[in-house]
Amino acid sequence: MTEPQFPPTEKTMDAAIGFEHLGAGDGHARGRFEITDSVRQPYGIVHGGAYAAAAESLASAATFMAVHGEGMLAMGQSNHTSFLRPVSQGTIHAEGTARHRGRTSWVWEVEFKDDEGRLCALSRVTMAVRPAPSAEGA
Amino acid sequence: MTEPQFPPTEKTMDAAIGFEHLGAGDGHARGRFEITDSVRQPYGIVHGGAYAAAAESLASAATFMAVHGEGMLAMGQSNHTSFLRPVSQGTIHAEGTARHRGRTSWVWEVEFKDDEGRLCALSRVTMAVRPAPSAEGA
Amino acid sequence: MTEPQFPPTEKTMDAAIGFEHLGAGDGHARGRFEITDSVRQPYGIVHGGAYAAAAESLASAATFMAVHGEGMLAMGQSNHTSFLRPVSQGTIHAEGTARHRGRTSWVWEVEFKDDEGRLCALSRVTMAVRPAPSAEGA
Amino acid sequence: MTEPQFPPTEKTMDAAIGFEHLGAGDGHARGRFEITDSVRQPYGIVHGGAYAAAAESLASAATFMAVHGEGMLAMGQSNHTSFLRPVSQGTIHAEGTARHRGRTSWVWEVEFKDDEGRLCALSRVTMAVRPAPSAEGA
Repeated sequence: MTEPQFPPTEKTMDAAIGFEHLGAGDGHARGRFEITDSVRQPYGIVHGGAYAAAAESLASAATFMAVHGEGMLAMGQSNHTSFLRPVSQGTIHAEGTARHRGRTSWVWEVEFKDDEGRLCALSRVTMAVRPAPSAEGA
Repeated sequence: MTEPQFPPTEKTMDAAIGFEHLGAGDGHARGRFEITDSVRQPYGIVHGGAYAAAAESLASAATFMAVHGEGMLAMGQSNHTSFLRPVSQGTIHAEGTARHRGRTSWVWEVEFKDDEGRLCALSRVTMAVRPAPSAEGA
Repeated sequence: MTEPQFPPTEKTMDAAIGFEHLGAGDGHARGRFEITDSVRQPYGIVHGGAYAAAAESLASAATFMAVHGEGMLAMGQSNHTSFLRPVSQGTIHAEGTARHRGRTSWVWEVEFKDDEGRLCALSRVTMAVRPAPSAEGA
Repeated sequence: MTEPQFPPTEKTMDAAIGFEHLGAGDGHARGRFEITDSVRQPYGIVHGGAYAAAAESLASAATFMAVHGEGMLAMGQSNHTSFLRPVSQGTIHAEGTARHRGRTSWVWEVEFKDDEGRLCALSRVTMAVRPAPSAEGA
């Protein structure tokens, strides 16, 4: 079996919105993205979809890394993001906590804060955990 | 008062993910995006955040256009997207229906289908409707 | 194998809130509850939890009946209910549609209307579908 | 103006399901319910709607108490509850935290634990905060 490793993100949505993974382990994960036009909506504030996409990436990668070694893979099942504060400049800091790590699903809460530490958005991401096709053939 | 018009999207997240608005009115809205690397996750399928972002754009623009003439603006309040089918090629077609058009909030359901018309994702987007700052000063 | 049948509800939450199942099949299900004090909040309108509970019951029972014959069972995974219109008198009519019927999960949309047919609440219920313990031993 | 006080719950859904408020203040609130047939589904475990209803009651009452003195009232706007662990006996303990206390909306996270402190369900409740009709006439 190949060693668990982080999926490459150069040619993915992470690159398109500038989302950067900062590490994951033990049910926690961190990341961030800079506020550029690629994550803004027409009024200049951060697009709701940028928070949702960042939460999805964070939870997916962290779940993948945790279950991959056991021949499982993680697939996003649902993403519910609430938008709490408009932000237009600086960096958005994401911090995720796995609230549930079940055999068939993981549930993450991801908090997004601005440079002053104020909560801007809150996501709940549900990941389905399923046997990896390659694992069965291995 | 300026005439209601569609906010420009060239320098926004819509451009980053290639989301195209195809028209809105009477509580309905349509759009689409092509599946390119900018909306893919590392396994090559459409990133959950792309659906969420597209739903957010569709609902925001359509609500804005409907309430702007009355001096109101629309702000995303929450976005709950369920991922139903992995897709890796072609175009994703979005169709939104306003299920509630209240004085202070609108609730949209947005369906995403692949080129064969199969449902891939489902979003519920809640928009807060508030007086526009400019409207008060006008 | 025993014949698929509706689980008894006399001694359950359905009885406590007066929720009545009116039939299910082919990805559709209907039910209703009368507005009595048991489903009211302190201001006299229908409690948000009554809609959520009714949606959960409707989707659970309908999924159970559809998958039970194949040795599977259905367990509620998440319930997201939006409250659109306060109602204080009459009957609430529920109509559910399965938007996704996958091998491991079903996703339902449930609409709630008052006696005049006005939309009062909207639920999305995700059911996990898993092998029934009894099926394995059979 | 009358003094802010807790709305009476004897003839409401709280009574039907046995939900007990244990106090609220400073963005926190606690409550509980015993597992009886009134909160069970047909298989004997806690009905998903019981968690949703309890979260709704907790967040509604706590927001009401916080904003009532300023002539505002709180109305449930949406409730998203994830079910993490089946429980069939004992007491369910609810603890809510206001993650956002805005001028027009509050967002609560409510955790539900069993008697052993294990997380059973997780709710996000969004409350709309609006001027109370009586406050305007006062």
